[in-house]
Parts: sequence; structure tokens; C-alpha cells
Amino acid sequence: MTKSTPWTRSSRPRIERLTRRMLDDNISAIVCMSPEGTFYLSGFNPIIYSHPVIVIATPGHEPILLVFALRGKHACESTWTPDVRLYGTWAGIKTLAPTWQQALAMIIEDLGVAGKRIGVEEGWLSVAQYREVAGALPHAHLVDASASVSLCRQIKDPDEIGNARIAARIADVGMAAAVEALGQRGLTERQVVIAAMSAMNQDWACNYPEVEACDFGSLEGGNHNGLAVWVLSGPRKSYACDNPTQRIPQEGETVSVFIWTVANGIHAELERTVCIGSVAPAEKEAINAILNIRAEVADLLHPGIPIRALYEVAKKGFEKRGYGACLPGRIGHAIGLGAHESTSINGSSDMTLAAGMIVTLEPHIHISDVCGTQFSDTILITEAGPEYLTHFDGGYLEV
Amino acid sequence: MTKSTPWTRSSRPRIERLTRRMLDDNISAIVCMSPEGTFYLSGFNPIIYSHPVIVIATPGHEPILLVFALRGKHACESTWTPDVRLYGTWAGIKTLAPTWQQALAMIIEDLGVAGKRIGVEEGWLSVAQYREVAGALPHAHLVDASASVSLCRQIKDPDEIGNARIAARIADVGMAAAVEALGQRGLTERQVVIAAMSAMNQDWACNYPEVEACDFGSLEGGNHNGLAVWVLSGPRKSYACDNPTQRIPQEGETVSVFIWTVANGIHAELERTVCIGSVAPAEKEAINAILNIRAEVADLLHPGIPIRALYEVAKKGFEKRGYGACLPGRIGHAIGLGAHESTSINGSSDMTLAAGMIVTLEPHIHISDVCGTQFSDTILITEAGPEYLTHFDGGYLEV
Repeated sequence: MTKSTPWTRSSRPRIERLTRRMLDDNISAIVCMSPEGTFYLSGFNPIIYSHPVIVIATPGHEPILLVFALRGKHACESTWTPDVRLYGTWAGIKTLAPTWQQALAMIIEDLGVAGKRIGVEEGWLSVAQYREVAGALPHAHLVDASASVSLCRQIKDPDEIGNARIAARIADVGMAAAVEALGQRGLTERQVVIAAMSAMNQDWACNYPEVEACDFGSLEGGNHNGLAVWVLSGPRKSYACDNPTQRIPQEGETVSVFIWTVANGIHAELERTVCIGSVAPAEKEAINAILNIRAEVADLLHPGIPIRALYEVAKKGFEKRGYGACLPGRIGHAIGLGAHESTSINGSSDMTLAAGMIVTLEPHIHISDVCGTQFSDTILITEAGPEYLTHFDGGYLEV
Repeated sequence: MTKSTPWTRSSRPRIERLTRRMLDDNISAIVCMSPEGTFYLSGFNPIIYSHPVIVIATPGHEPILLVFALRGKHACESTWTPDVRLYGTWAGIKTLAPTWQQALAMIIEDLGVAGKRIGVEEGWLSVAQYREVAGALPHAHLVDASASVSLCRQIKDPDEIGNARIAARIADVGMAAAVEALGQRGLTERQVVIAAMSAMNQDWACNYPEVEACDFGSLEGGNHNGLAVWVLSGPRKSYACDNPTQRIPQEGETVSVFIWTVANGIHAELERTVCIGSVAPAEKEAINAILNIRAEVADLLHPGIPIRALYEVAKKGFEKRGYGACLPGRIGHAIGLGAHESTSINGSSDMTLAAGMIVTLEPHIHISDVCGTQFSDTILITEAGPEYLTHFDGGYLEV
């Protein structure tokens, strides 16, 4: 099965980066099976993964996308790699082999790497599936390639940055709708969530015809729509995440609003603490402290700064304002194909900020029965410094 | 941490069933870590699983729910097991140990099973996490308990059946809204999806105050809302699953509408082929054939019938109507905590239908460029026979 669309390697710098890593690590091929990983290396997300989707990446060769016959047409229309191969028995379609294990073995044999070091995602692959891969490739020396793929994902390609901008714009629309709904007073958490979801879906449906809003599902089910809203009011803020309830936010309380969006697989997040009228001095003080700490760290978001140094600045900010005892373990994280990617902005990181990274900035102050702040933006690191992709007002927010 | 709510084992028959399986398989404890599995054995779904949630099940003991300190309050308010334990360092809360590995080792030691056969979910647990568990329990003989848990899940407990009824009722509301939107003509796939999602969310928000509509996420992200709709029109039906587009279903086409819902973790599905006006004879014929085949199989959905026999009846139905060449590999599946649970209604099954199972019935006829039918209902198997939990009109559907 060959695609007619022309494809050039230079349009997907991630392949170059991954190839360099594979050469450094002496890995001859990577057999990628996670939803995020296979999408990263092919652009195909079938949403349902009951039939495994596999990408075989090897230096000097386009990524090979191996899918069940039923998914062939869909895969060919979605993917940017020109090499799509099929397995399985379905509707009389000609395939490489009846099972993915057989097809994988044939591809690895053809590539001449059957006896070499082959990378798999040990951080994702189940023990049972690992056994299947090992059985299909009896001569291979399987090694963990989780880090190769996740490090490669840290620097975003131009298409990913474009999608992050869209996801962030949709998040802005959702936050505006949530804040407006909270301003009406008397609506339940659920009603606020529904208002924001509805606004985002309308925005997506009208303005982004080429963008998919589905997310990556688990092995037991798909995630059809990744335009997500969480609303936790008053004491429920301490749950950090929960389904919304029929609780009505009360005058004088604060409400945590989380907007998480996705555009063609790339996520954005936008989070705000909204004050319902005038709140207690202790809450107000914590909010102002966190806004100032964020500003201090944001100034430093330039390529070349050690991530640990960012955390240190936040730590000092917490301490000098009397919040040293509730310093969080991290003050942000990388974001992209995952809503939370593996890089954390914490005190033990040995990573350095680089242009093309996308991170969230979200130091929080949570003190039981006193306050809980929740501010986060999605920020692209450019050569010139931080570029906020989410634009919603980042100051003190009262309705 | 102890809950004040009284809890009796008899209210959760699943624990009895799992205990019997463990005794049969000579497994002294199961260390469960999957979102579906831990919810099954505790009733707690934090939506975000960045900090592992673990349930330790052992005969003669209530399930032990082990969560990160941050999740302690939420877990205690959600779970029905009285034994909640904490790990990690957070906000000065007293915990069992700084890491889940250490806490797990302490619990297993305390239960006196450290050197025994301990079950893990090899079908879900990643290679990396397996290694962590093995490292924490160096004296244990780890064995696969995936089948023990999934077989146990086949028979639904009363609380699960109650939730399936709710999920099915919400699905009925979604299908009615989707069909109405299609009847308006001129709306895009996306607009139909949005109309159905909106109707279901309003229904949930108004009528089910105690029900959570979140789903189980992946390790990289959560699934905040499991009230899902897929709409695939005309030639796009062959994709089987995809994000909706701005395509407008055309006069004379058929449209596949998939409604998947969840209530407190339990899923329902309802799928229909909707004809936009009068469709080609070949499509009409396939739809009528599938409706008749479904009726023939549905009559047999009684406890005690081998699942393979159901498939055989469908096979004969396909053959006698001239569709033998496009007989699908399965004609339905179990449903519950997973949208697709492991039991398939196929020709190689060695399972027998039993009261308390919930299954979908969905033989499909897909012939490239000719037709694609999509009818599915969620059906509870009772002593008296099949009880359709989804009630939406199951006949020929034209708008």
C-alpha cells in the first residue's frame, strides 16, 4: 500500500533526531506500539487500539506503519509516512501476514536487523505484549527505547508547535466560557463544565476543519474528545482532580478551573483560580504570592537555563513569602502528545531548557482548609524567550 | 486512615468470586495497578494516574487501597473498602513510606505473603513497572493474574448492573438527539456529534447527581468525560472509528452513529445505521438482513448457551442470506469497566453465557463501496433471558 502524497524527511525533523539517538545508543530499529509513540512517528491515531498499531523506525528508512487491514484506508489517508503495511484477515484485503507478530518478524527480517539491538517502549509495553514481541523476534536483543523516544519528543517540530497554538486558542475560549458561567453565580460545577466544553467544541467545529480533537485512549477504550474541563470549588480544590458535582460555588470561595485541550494530538493546558466575589485575606495573599512567583520564574524561561535553576528561583520565592513549608515537588512540566510529558521542572532535573520545548508553568500553594491556588499556562520556549501560547488574563481573577 | 462508613463483604460479591479464583490458582495476593482493576476492587477513580493507585487483594482481608498522600481524602470519600493506606511525601501528611514500592513491600510483609505466589496484571503492567514490583517484592513468585481479574469481571455485581442501566439510559438520550440532528439535514458530522454530546451531558448533569461520567484514562492523560459520540457518514463508515469531520451526510447515504457512555465506571454502547432518506437497494437489503440476524441470535441469549453456538447461528444467518463472504470475526463482546471487555462472541470461544453478564450484540455487514451496517445494543443476561438495557428503536431507521 503506497501513498501518493509526496513526503520529505526534512518536513519531520523528529526522524532526524530519533535517528541520531538510535545511532548513539547502537539501536538498529525501534518497534513502537504506544498510541502516543506511533502517532508521533506516523501521524495516525485510530482512537481505538484493540488491533495493535505498530511503527518500525530504523535509520535510513522511512517509518513503517503496520496496521490491521481494516485500518488500512484510514491509515493511508492520515499518515505522512509513505510506507504503510497491513496485517490480518479482513474483507479479502491482501496483507503481509495473518498476525501482527508474523508481519513484524517479516519486516524486521527484510530490514536486515533481525539479530541486532531492537528498541521497545518498556515504560509502556505490557509484560504480555513484550513477550509477544520477544517471541516474534527471537534473535533480537530487545532494549529499552522509552528514553530515546521521550527525549526526542521534548523538542517540538513545526507541525506540533502549530497544533499547540490551536490547542491553546481553544483553551482560551473554554476558560472565557467557564469564567463567564461562574460570573453568572448559581450554576453548579457541572453546568460550568458543560458551558466551557460546549464553547470549545463549537469553536473547534466551526474554526478548525482540519484539526482532530480526539485524544489517545487506553487499551480498553478510546478517548473521542479531548476538550476537557475540570471545575473544583471551595473545599473540593484539595482533590486536585475529580468529576464535577452539583455543588454550587459559594460567595467568598475560590474555584479551580482546569482547561485541557488537544489539537491533532498536541495538548495545551490553561488553569486559573477564580474568586467568587471577595475572598478571605489568606487566599488573596496566596494568590498574589503565586502570581509574583510565576512572574519571577517566567522571566528566566530562555534556552540554556538549567531546569533546576528555575525550580530554585521558585523555591526562593516561596521561602521569602513565608510559603517554604508548602513548596511543591515540581512547578511545571513538559506538554505535547502527553498532557504531562516526562520532563518535570523540579529540583533534581539535569535537563536544560531549549528552544522548541513547550512547558507549563504552575507553582501552586495548597494549604489544607486555608487556600489552594491553580494557575497554569502553556509556554513555548523560543530563542527570544518565553512565548505564552495561552493568552487568557493571568492576573488576579474575581467575578 | 479508616473510613467511618460500614462496609460488608456481601455487598460486593466480586470479592467472594475473586477470592475463590485466587484459592483455586494458589495465588496469595493480587497487586492490582490498572485503572479499571483498581476501580473494580475499590471504587476509586482519581482520573489522573501519574501517582500509581494500587489495590492489594488477599483472601480473608478487605481490599487494601494504597494511594499517594495527595489523593487520601478523595480516596476515602470515594472508596467502599475500609482499608485505605497512603504513601509519599505531601503537605506533612503521615504516610506508610516515602515511595509506593516501600509501602507495597511493607503491606505484603504484614500480610505474611512475602514469599508466596503474588498475582500481577501482565496484560496491563508495563515492563518497567513490573520490574519495580519485582524489585519491591524480591521474595515473591510473581504470576499473571490478568485472567483471574478479567474472568471475575464477566459477572456483574448489582451496583454495576445499576450503573449499566444508567449508562444505557444516557445513551438512549444521545441517540435520540443524534437522530434528530440528522433529521434536520444539512448538519455536519461534527454538529451531530456536538448535539448528542450536549444532550447526554445535560441529562447527566440534571438527572444523575451521584453518578460520575469520567472514564479511565491512559498513563499519559485522563479521560474527563466518557459520554462519547462517533458519526461516520457515507464512505467514511469504512473507517469504523474516527474523529467527526465537517462532512454533511448526503441524501441517500447511510450514517453510522456510535454512542458510548459510562456511569460510575460502567460502560454502555448503542449503535445505529441511520438512512438519510431512501437508500440504495443493496444497503437496504443488508440492513434488513442484519436486523433479522440480530433477532435470531437475540432469541438465544439465555444463561447456559455456549457463546460459540451464538456465533454459529449468526454464521448460518449470514450464509443463508448470501453474506457468508463477509461474516465478521465476532458478533459482540462483553462490556463493563471496559468499553470492550475480553470476552468476544466468536466461533472459538469456550465460554458459556451466564446470568449477570452484559454483552453487546453487533453482527455487521461491511462490503467496500456497497454497504456498512452498524447496530449494537447493551444487553443484560438474566435468568429469564436477554434484557435490553438500551431501548432506542432497533428497527429500520430512516430520517
